[in-house]
Amino acid sequence: MNIAVLGTGMVGQAIAGRLHDLGHSVVVGTRDPRATLARTEPDQMGNPPFSAWHGAHTGVELATFADAAARAELVVNASSGSATLEVLQQAGADNLAGKVLVDVANPLDFSAGFPPTLSVKDTDSLGEQVQRAFPQARVVKALNTLNASLMVDPRSLGQSSTVFVSGEDADAKAAVVDLLESFGHDDVIDLGGLETARGTEMLLPIWLRLMGALGTAQFNFKVVR
Amino acid sequence: MNIAVLGTGMVGQAIAGRLHDLGHSVVVGTRDPRATLARTEPDQMGNPPFSAWHGAHTGVELATFADAAARAELVVNASSGSATLEVLQQAGADNLAGKVLVDVANPLDFSAGFPPTLSVKDTDSLGEQVQRAFPQARVVKALNTLNASLMVDPRSLGQSSTVFVSGEDADAKAAVVDLLESFGHDDVIDLGGLETARGTEMLLPIWLRLMGALGTAQFNFKVVR
Repeated sequence: MNIAVLGTGMVGQAIAGRLHDLGHSVVVGTRDPRATLARTEPDQMGNPPFSAWHGAHTGVELATFADAAARAELVVNASSGSATLEVLQQAGADNLAGKVLVDVANPLDFSAGFPPTLSVKDTDSLGEQVQRAFPQARVVKALNTLNASLMVDPRSLGQSSTVFVSGEDADAKAAVVDLLESFGHDDVIDLGGLETARGTEMLLPIWLRLMGALGTAQFNFKVVR
Repeated sequence: MNIAVLGTGMVGQAIAGRLHDLGHSVVVGTRDPRATLARTEPDQMGNPPFSAWHGAHTGVELATFADAAARAELVVNASSGSATLEVLQQAGADNLAGKVLVDVANPLDFSAGFPPTLSVKDTDSLGEQVQRAFPQARVVKALNTLNASLMVDPRSLGQSSTVFVSGEDADAKAAVVDLLESFGHDDVIDLGGLETARGTEMLLPIWLRLMGALGTAQFNFKVVR
């Protein structure tokens, strides 16, 4: 499948790399490809620059958000939550119309330090904001409840764990479930409509505190039933 | 141990019954014991009245919130989140001072229908509100992330699942962990200070939506790591 991954951070890299390894044609979208490739410093989190990752993944193309989205059948929003709506504006409503848009972002607000709070919650969600802003996109909230490496390789935990999908379009959700299963996810719960993204986004506060208590981000929730 | 359970609903009944079965001396607290026992109608959720439960659990005493708390070494707040601060006022700050206060409640706001929203979240929690209102109580947030029957009998799931404790007082948390283990919990994660109750209370939105998607409340989260 032709897939655009919008965002060059750890999440974008993990998803783009995995999709490429699985045989998809992947274009990573960024604001300014030349500027992204010119960066040689680690990011604010100390992660290596995108150019280092890209050197090891030459089969993945880098393009503007709009070019990446235009050529894709399925688009993954892997930008930060605070940038998401602007990134998708740059991708362009016309380039998203009719396409499955997998929203992986969380509306984290770091303005008051760590742990971040949520800029939207409880009575709304980032997933719903995206759907309202791009009504012709087929938005599916998914993969926003675990870290980048487990998103694409859940089997590394050695035990089954759970991921969730939320969305209004049953066919779009089915396509995303197929992708998740191709990553190794063996327990995908369809929570229902996009309103249920409020639930998965509000998992972040305990996720962040568990990361602190456990001293690792290599964990995930399993819904035992 | 002498334990007060404040609240006569499903959560209070489950916890009081289990503690009594484990050999503790249990007093259930209510606003007006005579009125509570006089009620013969099911509650708003269709559950049998407290008097029916009490008839089958004659070893558990019923008293006012204040009498129950006064005689207890450990107090469990099993009232609804919207009533919690008033219930604890009735129990009395002096009767709570120095005691372990297990806060099981969630700040659910049903005023806009189902699913409820949270009346406090993200930058504060009900657990922290309770601690600020009763600074001499040793508040431990626990058991607010699963349904009443699983709170006291997690082994009925057939697989290990996780519960959490949050609080400022290490000895109080240790006492609560002992109680949880006596209920059958085999994976208790200490998240840290009471601020982490924001995380467990914000699990409720996905818990409620999972109940809808799965068609049952007989599930719990396991933190796979």
